[in-house]
Amino acid sequence: MRRFVPALLALVAAAGVLFSALPVLTAAESPIAAPSGVTIPKGYRNWQVVAPSQRDDKDEIRVILGNDIAMKAYRANTLPFPDGAILAKLAWMRVPSKEFPKTFVPGEAPRIEFMVKNAKKYASTGGWGFGRFINGKPASDQDHATCFPCHEANVKGHDFVFTRYAP
Amino acid sequence: MRRFVPALLALVAAAGVLFSALPVLTAAESPIAAPSGVTIPKGYRNWQVVAPSQRDDKDEIRVILGNDIAMKAYRANTLPFPDGAILAKLAWMRVPSKEFPKTFVPGEAPRIEFMVKNAKKYASTGGWGFGRFINGKPASDQDHATCFPCHEANVKGHDFVFTRYAP
Repeated sequence: MRRFVPALLALVAAAGVLFSALPVLTAAESPIAAPSGVTIPKGYRNWQVVAPSQRDDKDEIRVILGNDIAMKAYRANTLPFPDGAILAKLAWMRVPSKEFPKTFVPGEAPRIEFMVKNAKKYASTGGWGFGRFINGKPASDQDHATCFPCHEANVKGHDFVFTRYAP
Repeated sequence: MRRFVPALLALVAAAGVLFSALPVLTAAESPIAAPSGVTIPKGYRNWQVVAPSQRDDKDEIRVILGNDIAMKAYRANTLPFPDGAILAKLAWMRVPSKEFPKTFVPGEAPRIEFMVKNAKKYASTGGWGFGRFINGKPASDQDHATCFPCHEANVKGHDFVFTRYAP
């Protein structure tokens, strides 16, 4: 039964009903496991900001948040991150502000992503478990398989984490 | 920070430029009032995210944070914002990521800004006190005089606040 909930939500979203509210509601109440076993952590939207970023090619604005363990590690320059650290990547399509020229604001949120540190459990992927969720549903195994290779290729020297703390 | 004070004072006194250097030193320890009386709130960097934004013309990425009163109001769609609500606008120059193409990350922070709600105290500026700080020092009166007219002209219908909550 549980597996039908995301599909139903997607249908509702597609119908344009409560588009922005429902996925968040679901995420908070019953996190869904990604293939890695990573779930949507409760309360992640209330975490502190590590830094924003922006991609021209995808027309996206992102904000990376960290749980308490992650923020403490960032502020103490602790590398590698300790077990229990979780990073959340919120992404939104950037859309032009209707109220100010040459300014972009968040539009739809195409996905949310998490990196969960557990050196032993995720030893084969740098100690990090990766979870990507689209409309509250985990991305495919094939999709998830692309996470670590990119982090490994580009930011191995920063414990496989792209984002630096922006004071 | 405290340990550097004696050495810094000696250096500054020797150079004979006591007053030009001290305000920066003070900023970290005790926020300085802007002309409006707005100060840098302690712990603002730990506040929750309202939303990011991005300006092509200024090459900046921003994140707006809110204190607990502001976040509660946002999530309950409460307008106008209640007294005590404070919004913080963090801005960074966007610089190309060295690790990923077509991606921008935070560079230098040109300023931080705050909006403090107090309907009575700031009645002449929509109930909001505006504070802009550059390198820890308040911007000029002339500079601050530009804040409210722009908010009034563009977002009067949203209690003079540009940023909407991005779920």
